[in-house]
Amino acid sequence: MKSILEHINSPNDLKSLKEKDLEQLAVELREFIIDIVSVKEGHLGASLGVVELTIALHYVFNTPVDKLIWDVGHQAYGHKILSGRKDVFDTNRQLGGISGFPKMQESEYDAFGTGHSSTSISALLGMALAAQLQGKLRRQHIAVIGDASIASGMAFEGLNHAGVTNANILVVLNDNAMGIDPSVGALKKYLTNVKTGTAKEENIFECLNFHYSGPVDGHDLPILVQELERLQKIEGPKLLHVITTKGKGLQKAEENQVTYHAPGKFDKQTGELQKKTSIAEPPKYQDVFGKTLVELAQKNEKIVGITPAMPTGSSLKFMMETIPDRAFDVGIAEQHAVTLAAGMATDGLVVFCNIYSTFLQRAYDQVIHDVAIQNLPVIFCLDRAGLVGEDGPTHHGVFDISYLRCIPNLIVFSPLNEIELRNIMYTAQLGLDHPIAIRYPRGRGNLIHWQVPMEKLAIGKGHILKEGTKIAILSTGPIGNMASNLMSELDQHGAIAHYNFPFIKPLDTILLKEILQKYEHIITLEDGSAIGGFGSAVLEFANNIGIYKIIKIFGIPDYFITHGPTEKLYKKAGIDKMSVKQYVQQFL
Amino acid sequence: MKSILEHINSPNDLKSLKEKDLEQLAVELREFIIDIVSVKEGHLGASLGVVELTIALHYVFNTPVDKLIWDVGHQAYGHKILSGRKDVFDTNRQLGGISGFPKMQESEYDAFGTGHSSTSISALLGMALAAQLQGKLRRQHIAVIGDASIASGMAFEGLNHAGVTNANILVVLNDNAMGIDPSVGALKKYLTNVKTGTAKEENIFECLNFHYSGPVDGHDLPILVQELERLQKIEGPKLLHVITTKGKGLQKAEENQVTYHAPGKFDKQTGELQKKTSIAEPPKYQDVFGKTLVELAQKNEKIVGITPAMPTGSSLKFMMETIPDRAFDVGIAEQHAVTLAAGMATDGLVVFCNIYSTFLQRAYDQVIHDVAIQNLPVIFCLDRAGLVGEDGPTHHGVFDISYLRCIPNLIVFSPLNEIELRNIMYTAQLGLDHPIAIRYPRGRGNLIHWQVPMEKLAIGKGHILKEGTKIAILSTGPIGNMASNLMSELDQHGAIAHYNFPFIKPLDTILLKEILQKYEHIITLEDGSAIGGFGSAVLEFANNIGIYKIIKIFGIPDYFITHGPTEKLYKKAGIDKMSVKQYVQQFL
Repeated sequence: MKSILEHINSPNDLKSLKEKDLEQLAVELREFIIDIVSVKEGHLGASLGVVELTIALHYVFNTPVDKLIWDVGHQAYGHKILSGRKDVFDTNRQLGGISGFPKMQESEYDAFGTGHSSTSISALLGMALAAQLQGKLRRQHIAVIGDASIASGMAFEGLNHAGVTNANILVVLNDNAMGIDPSVGALKKYLTNVKTGTAKEENIFECLNFHYSGPVDGHDLPILVQELERLQKIEGPKLLHVITTKGKGLQKAEENQVTYHAPGKFDKQTGELQKKTSIAEPPKYQDVFGKTLVELAQKNEKIVGITPAMPTGSSLKFMMETIPDRAFDVGIAEQHAVTLAAGMATDGLVVFCNIYSTFLQRAYDQVIHDVAIQNLPVIFCLDRAGLVGEDGPTHHGVFDISYLRCIPNLIVFSPLNEIELRNIMYTAQLGLDHPIAIRYPRGRGNLIHWQVPMEKLAIGKGHILKEGTKIAILSTGPIGNMASNLMSELDQHGAIAHYNFPFIKPLDTILLKEILQKYEHIITLEDGSAIGGFGSAVLEFANNIGIYKIIKIFGIPDYFITHGPTEKLYKKAGIDKMSVKQYVQQFL
Repeated sequence: MKSILEHINSPNDLKSLKEKDLEQLAVELREFIIDIVSVKEGHLGASLGVVELTIALHYVFNTPVDKLIWDVGHQAYGHKILSGRKDVFDTNRQLGGISGFPKMQESEYDAFGTGHSSTSISALLGMALAAQLQGKLRRQHIAVIGDASIASGMAFEGLNHAGVTNANILVVLNDNAMGIDPSVGALKKYLTNVKTGTAKEENIFECLNFHYSGPVDGHDLPILVQELERLQKIEGPKLLHVITTKGKGLQKAEENQVTYHAPGKFDKQTGELQKKTSIAEPPKYQDVFGKTLVELAQKNEKIVGITPAMPTGSSLKFMMETIPDRAFDVGIAEQHAVTLAAGMATDGLVVFCNIYSTFLQRAYDQVIHDVAIQNLPVIFCLDRAGLVGEDGPTHHGVFDISYLRCIPNLIVFSPLNEIELRNIMYTAQLGLDHPIAIRYPRGRGNLIHWQVPMEKLAIGKGHILKEGTKIAILSTGPIGNMASNLMSELDQHGAIAHYNFPFIKPLDTILLKEILQKYEHIITLEDGSAIGGFGSAVLEFANNIGIYKIIKIFGIPDYFITHGPTEKLYKKAGIDKMSVKQYVQQFL
């Protein structure tokens, strides 16, 4: 077993294989991925779907001289294994281990780092134009992009530019009709027509001046090799339409493609998911959002929900299942999602637009230009704010406070816990005078009994959680729970007060002024960038009213935080309990 | 003359006209626009091109009940004039006057505020879906979008979503083959084929499930009225392809479409531009950028330039004319522009990516995800930073310092004057270890002799401009020149020192520490948001090293600044010379 794969330590080793050996290699590679991911966890389905494509690409092309970009990068495990990272693949996504995404620093075979979708065509075109300018005329440039990703606006911009160049690029459209959730949109429908032969004669990619070929069976190695070899000789922009099955080769993964996108641990023979213990656990913030939204929407007919391609990840799926006409998955289209929300808000709808913090970076202009300038009361729910763990620097949601705080009209809110998230959702749907961004983290909260009746919050109000005399800790968001734990350990003499500031903007300046006047030492805590964040807001206010005190800001430091378990990352970032404890102890 | 237009005070007044009167109205409306814009300035060409379309839309549809959105909005002058703003149209773009763009606050006929391109389809779809949910089944929804704007990714996202709904929307594609500069890209080429009849049978919009009709002559009123009436009765998403001539009706404007996009004052009969006086004036920053880039690129073969659709506005056109193979206009595609730059940078090219500050908001994620995380030394030139004047809140470049300062690896630079802009461009192309954002304002600098030999700057260094004893003014960017003027008026006893901090990040912390220790009063000056900007950076540093002093931050306050002459806007914003003077005088 694995008699071929064990000898493959770089794509060069592939070249000596006979074409018929490639199919055996595919079997072994798939098995290798399943072996490791079943134990170590990770993104399974996408990589299983492109095993043959990965082998064919490295067999035909001359990587790393030829440039190969994997859009998003969930599907690049096979690529990593074949390109020298077989022996470290079991460290995938772990602290100190290899990244779950292509990463230039990690390997010369990773031509461009990915993570967010739809970047590959632009980056690839940049490389191909650079090759032309620098006389690297024989270099090949290939991007592999899924059908959900190619429907995003940025990919269209890349295609639109590429189509008027004679750049030597090959876009491989990996069409499995899935993103993380099923693909949506008119282009998906069109591609389905192409596949079933009901599309009319002309092709949308040909309209954009691409040489189109396909669709071909992406699990048929001889056809893939033949087609890639043929396209290698054709000049200019080309698109190869490849049909694959996400999860290919593991029956359960093929049948449950959403679940097996990143299934956690599972039985490598049967595919059976590892059972979770049934101990009562606090809910995921995602489920608090999703279930609360349904609860609210059942009473308030004006409520609609929007997600750009994350119905499962955000738990908007609960509303899509129960109130489908008012819940919209718009595909990987954050820009559109935000302005769609703005349009709906002009007509009196109460719009919950759920976007991961890191992906709202894609719609920053729309938040400013279409929502905030017009002061439309859109309710943004920013999922996965703070450090997200194993997905790493491309996915951490640590800039949102800084990039949102400077926007006039916008309210910025970070709930301490599940109840505060519910209460702000309840409050927001009653009608606000301004748009609001509600940011909450990935993963579980800290309350078992969270489905309590909701209360209306006063906008801009903070509150005291614990009295104290000398030191005040001001926290925003769930990192405040760490502070609460800390104090129960540390504060035997009642010196430390703790205040919760869920409203980062507007700040509770009355409360803040009292605090600044009363305490000797001020500490701020947040799970976002220390530059321009909540701590800076406190500092700016203190400066404005002329109070000068030591304000210690605990926030994400000024470098990109790596991947790994969230808890360890917070420790590395210096905003864990121990770091705060050490700082506080000097004053006790 | 104007016998019809003088009776039109709202679109309702149009309904009583006979179809044959509409053509006379078109003549009068065009003349009215020319009369006013020739004297008061503004965006001419786009509005002249859609005179017939504007009349036809308001004739056929029942605005403001029916929703009409003008993408970008340069073309909405006729719409404003017909919808009750005829008498105030001579205040267009002036302080206290009407906006140069559609604006919801201004009129119920402006269904959605615009300014940045390609938002209209998303907003329109939001309204149409809201209509469906709320039983407003007879309401019509129309967006007018140009061929340059529809090629932007965001518009594609809107089309892609709309195509799988049965929303009642009509997208009017106003195809004049122009944005501000000529349109580019594969879609433009394709549309040309459609117009000339050489495109094959199937239509790209039909691929996206739109009911396509056209192309029709956008200056033929009877045809437009007939076609709009027909489409009004068809359900679901529709696209009407209309061919127009930008600048229609003024010969010089038709012949010189780029110049007459916003020509300044001109002779309304002949179209002749008003001659500028020939007194030697400081150059526009744009020309400093454009000419310096050519100067550098002629010596450094690795240099390339990128603009998303602003070759004229940014002056990248100088490089496009002299070194066309290394200068790229990628169309309205900021996201693509940034990641294209990143791709080129991986291959050793020295990329100057010029994007207006306000438009970089469209590519915020790409700056973080594709450039900064990978630490690729892309050189961003952010044109029109600070307040831009008559274009108003949609176009002010006041958030960039705040949204860029939190990004690790990124250098942020704001030159004091033309020479400092040249020097940083020279320095950057020698090779930096990091990406850099160089932000400079719209309009003229302050030096007549600016083409002096360039010098290499030390990264992160600030410097003293004037010694002082008691008060230190720390400025970043050209607002520092105001401070210099102020001091020559004010400081007879040498109390006020002035420091220039062109590097906002990294800060010159050695110099800053000296300043913080030496002076009693610290003042910071910047032409960006006071929240999270340069002043906050100074404050954060002072706090970090435990120096507590009054730091007065002069920056843009926390509301959206209106349109009007830049100087007046700075005064309103409280960061003009008088405001600083008044503050300083209390300490003298």
